[in-house]
Amino acid sequence: MFHYLDLLGVIVFAVSGALEARERGMDVFGACAIGFVTALGGGTLRDMVLQHGPVFWVRDSTYIVLVTLASVATFLTAQRHTVPRRILLIADAGGLAVATTIGVQKALAASVSPVIALLMGVVTGVVGGIGRDVLCNEVPLVLCEDIYATVCLVGAILFLALRATHVPTDLASPIAVAFMFALRVAAIALNLRLPAVLRGPWRRQEWPDHGSNETP
Amino acid sequence: MFHYLDLLGVIVFAVSGALEARERGMDVFGACAIGFVTALGGGTLRDMVLQHGPVFWVRDSTYIVLVTLASVATFLTAQRHTVPRRILLIADAGGLAVATTIGVQKALAASVSPVIALLMGVVTGVVGGIGRDVLCNEVPLVLCEDIYATVCLVGAILFLALRATHVPTDLASPIAVAFMFALRVAAIALNLRLPAVLRGPWRRQEWPDHGSNETP
Amino acid sequence: MFHYLDLLGVIVFAVSGALEARERGMDVFGACAIGFVTALGGGTLRDMVLQHGPVFWVRDSTYIVLVTLASVATFLTAQRHTVPRRILLIADAGGLAVATTIGVQKALAASVSPVIALLMGVVTGVVGGIGRDVLCNEVPLVLCEDIYATVCLVGAILFLALRATHVPTDLASPIAVAFMFALRVAAIALNLRLPAVLRGPWRRQEWPDHGSNETP
Repeated sequence: MFHYLDLLGVIVFAVSGALEARERGMDVFGACAIGFVTALGGGTLRDMVLQHGPVFWVRDSTYIVLVTLASVATFLTAQRHTVPRRILLIADAGGLAVATTIGVQKALAASVSPVIALLMGVVTGVVGGIGRDVLCNEVPLVLCEDIYATVCLVGAILFLALRATHVPTDLASPIAVAFMFALRVAAIALNLRLPAVLRGPWRRQEWPDHGSNETP
Repeated sequence: MFHYLDLLGVIVFAVSGALEARERGMDVFGACAIGFVTALGGGTLRDMVLQHGPVFWVRDSTYIVLVTLASVATFLTAQRHTVPRRILLIADAGGLAVATTIGVQKALAASVSPVIALLMGVVTGVVGGIGRDVLCNEVPLVLCEDIYATVCLVGAILFLALRATHVPTDLASPIAVAFMFALRVAAIALNLRLPAVLRGPWRRQEWPDHGSNETP
Repeated sequence: MFHYLDLLGVIVFAVSGALEARERGMDVFGACAIGFVTALGGGTLRDMVLQHGPVFWVRDSTYIVLVTLASVATFLTAQRHTVPRRILLIADAGGLAVATTIGVQKALAASVSPVIALLMGVVTGVVGGIGRDVLCNEVPLVLCEDIYATVCLVGAILFLALRATHVPTDLASPIAVAFMFALRVAAIALNLRLPAVLRGPWRRQEWPDHGSNETP
């Protein structure tokens, strides 16, 4: 079941990438390229850094096929704003939660230290979105947005803590996923912000206010 | 002979990178750096992803030496517009055709599935140009331009189809290269466009019209 | 002792990345991310290209811990312009000198040719700063600034020349580090420029004059 959640997370990320590409005026290939980077970029960097066997999507073409289909379908059907941004953000929260958990697991399987496993969880969760924004010539939203990478960080710590107290992976994984999903959705719904001391002081003025901030 | 075509393709990509760097006001080192990324970026990413032995230019310094010489020579001699853009685009078409074919071959040598081999061909062909544009702080042209990545995709499919029907590599390679070269040159000469449904609707307005569109 | 210099260089790079992130209005996570990229990006690319064992910081968590602490501390304490830019540039010169020397050494340990070792030294020295600028959505300063990559290049050649004449590494390393440090500091203090033929002609007009050019 976890594997299907993983594939679902990948699809959601691909859709978000393809939507961004379409809004940027890219063609169908651009949509696929941004879809790939968004959906697979984090795991690719993780696997290249760990050098623990080949990159995950090289041995299992399912990922590439799914991302391509999702990106092309998104490109062909999407009109601006037909999918409410809120729905996309919530789906994205699911993808983020699953990707981070899988990232920590794969790092532990490569027998690295907990610090590195933590970092690999965050990398798997957020690097795809960073790549998407760099290719679209923007400052990555993740680096400015308040409660996004924080979710990965806290969730990865929770997963590692559960594993350290001998909770089996099959139980620790859904707990961590559910926790991260709930935290991210709460951050979107309640417009949670980091404490001021952890935010950059010039943020409000200098960056356009897109992302999770359109509160009710 | 194919090896020399490969080196020629690398030189062409390096020249195009160094020209871009010079137009951006970079110094001679910047020209070399952009030359490296444009000429070797795609193959580097391919080899890092496949993890099938070291990156190709690490074991054969010829590539680095040629790219350095080509970039420095381009930087020192180029003035704006002394090389007609059309000539460069045609040379670039040759580099693209060779790089894509080699990318597919190397992926097959790492015994991956055809889907991954296809993707690796496209990656080898276009990622260098994407890196060049990201470093120059632009939205990558490849992701917006109509018939560029499409050429790689169609050419890689042709090569895989020929191999699947037991055409030997020594014959399939030049066929695929010639096909891609002709298709790309035709796209430039005739200003071919993708069907409207595969293009981004806001493209014309939002992106400056550089690239292959200065038709007669 | 060299190992401690290495850690010091990493910290300096992390501080410079976190300062840049703060000036860009990023939050504390963005500061850490930019700190990571600046401090570890060059060595990471080097190790991924060489494929000679895992990336250096995967097996030694010290690097990640130090970079995190340095980035967070910088984010929390820095106000704009409290650290004089000149001090930072001099510290950065130290980091650059050490990183380049270590890059060449690690490449030689992977038994590559001198040309590749040279390139790996430059990559280790400058790629972190390039990644920082790309994530901050700027044209990388290194590619436009006169005497920066040049320092790495000349220093790496010096180190290789010393090794080729059988000077032991323990002696060649500090000589190369001191030379690069002195050269870079001199370039900052005296506002050294490359000869005009090696500079881009439109540089002065098109790029904002930040970096090492605020001479007395």
